[in-house]
Amino acid sequence: MRNIEVCFSPELIHLHDLQGKIVVVVDIFRATSTMIAALANGIDEIMTFADLEACREMRGKGYLIAAERNGLKIDGFDLGNSPVAFLKDDYSGQKLAMTTTNGTLAISKSSQADEILIGAFPNLSATVAYIQQQEKDVLVHCAGWKGRFNLEDSLYAGALVKSLESTHAAEEDGALAMKSLFEKEGHQLSAYLSKASHAKRLQNQGIEADIDFCLTLDLYDLVAKVENEKVKPISF
Amino acid sequence: MRNIEVCFSPELIHLHDLQGKIVVVVDIFRATSTMIAALANGIDEIMTFADLEACREMRGKGYLIAAERNGLKIDGFDLGNSPVAFLKDDYSGQKLAMTTTNGTLAISKSSQADEILIGAFPNLSATVAYIQQQEKDVLVHCAGWKGRFNLEDSLYAGALVKSLESTHAAEEDGALAMKSLFEKEGHQLSAYLSKASHAKRLQNQGIEADIDFCLTLDLYDLVAKVENEKVKPISF
Repeated sequence: MRNIEVCFSPELIHLHDLQGKIVVVVDIFRATSTMIAALANGIDEIMTFADLEACREMRGKGYLIAAERNGLKIDGFDLGNSPVAFLKDDYSGQKLAMTTTNGTLAISKSSQADEILIGAFPNLSATVAYIQQQEKDVLVHCAGWKGRFNLEDSLYAGALVKSLESTHAAEEDGALAMKSLFEKEGHQLSAYLSKASHAKRLQNQGIEADIDFCLTLDLYDLVAKVENEKVKPISF
Repeated sequence: MRNIEVCFSPELIHLHDLQGKIVVVVDIFRATSTMIAALANGIDEIMTFADLEACREMRGKGYLIAAERNGLKIDGFDLGNSPVAFLKDDYSGQKLAMTTTNGTLAISKSSQADEILIGAFPNLSATVAYIQQQEKDVLVHCAGWKGRFNLEDSLYAGALVKSLESTHAAEEDGALAMKSLFEKEGHQLSAYLSKASHAKRLQNQGIEADIDFCLTLDLYDLVAKVENEKVKPISF
């Protein structure tokens, strides 16, 4: 058996050894869900930026640019951080530069990993299938909310731990806890997560459609991997 | 309704606002459980130290001294960090100086709180009764394991959230998650926690009796509070 562990915040990632592991970065509301939506609708590659102005400059290099801070799209950008916005058009052949509050930080802090995948509910089973073909331990890196534990990323971690239980042992405490949590609440993700603090913030902004998308399982047979600081779909 | 939230590690406590709150520090295996055992068996007050030598010097000031590192008693100290060791004698009128790996750090990092309580399963209901008499929000500060999430402290947090649900709303994500986890696994604490990484380390050291003690509910009608850097039993 290989192993799986969970880190609940980029502020704790330095306590984990990432070498040789597949790190799955997850920011359910909404950065990693938006990346999966973008790639599934034709985007070729995604560059992520912690800095707003560095992202803005990518327009001059032929990129669509997307930015959100505290849940809101920034003026002057093509897109915000809404996954549903990508479902309306075909973006084939286009490249995307995006910056987000928490997700970008989690990716940049995962650079010691052997491989970095982008996790979201709409491509959970594809990610599971890919991981099970590799001989590597897994760490789920939850982006969290401003450094704190959050419910949606943690529940995704639990879903992944549960889905990998035939190949990856959950012996680490975070993995054990989130597996139990998913076993209890996974049948009612939407109802349970509607209590989560970030979901409440998003509901206040009237973007229930995004929340529904972010919690829908297995819409896409797509695996997303970070290579040379770019998120790309991979075939396997 | 007042509120309750959970912080999973001293490394995340700077992200929480402690002012005006009751902070319950918890290090189930074994520091806070040992403190409750010591106070219940006559110890008048406990001073905690991050530094081993500072603790050792307290012997010259009339204190029993207790020290543990990585689960083992240190040579030259009267006691280690075993709660069961305190059950054998009556320590009435004696004072204790102790240092531990994680618990001391969590106490020292809680100093902004309005009140600091010491939490453990053997005095859970007494702590609940005390908290419900105050008009304050609560934060559970899990000591964790070397900065990481651990299962036993988190489950105590869940037990406290659940026990306070009539007076303290669990709207914060950590509190919500741990309440669910306790609802699922709380009926089989010992069996579930035997999977936890720290419990496995302790089992390897042959101290199952300590584990059993640490997971036993409501042995004592005792509330422990940190005042002037000393842990003391309080009456209310």
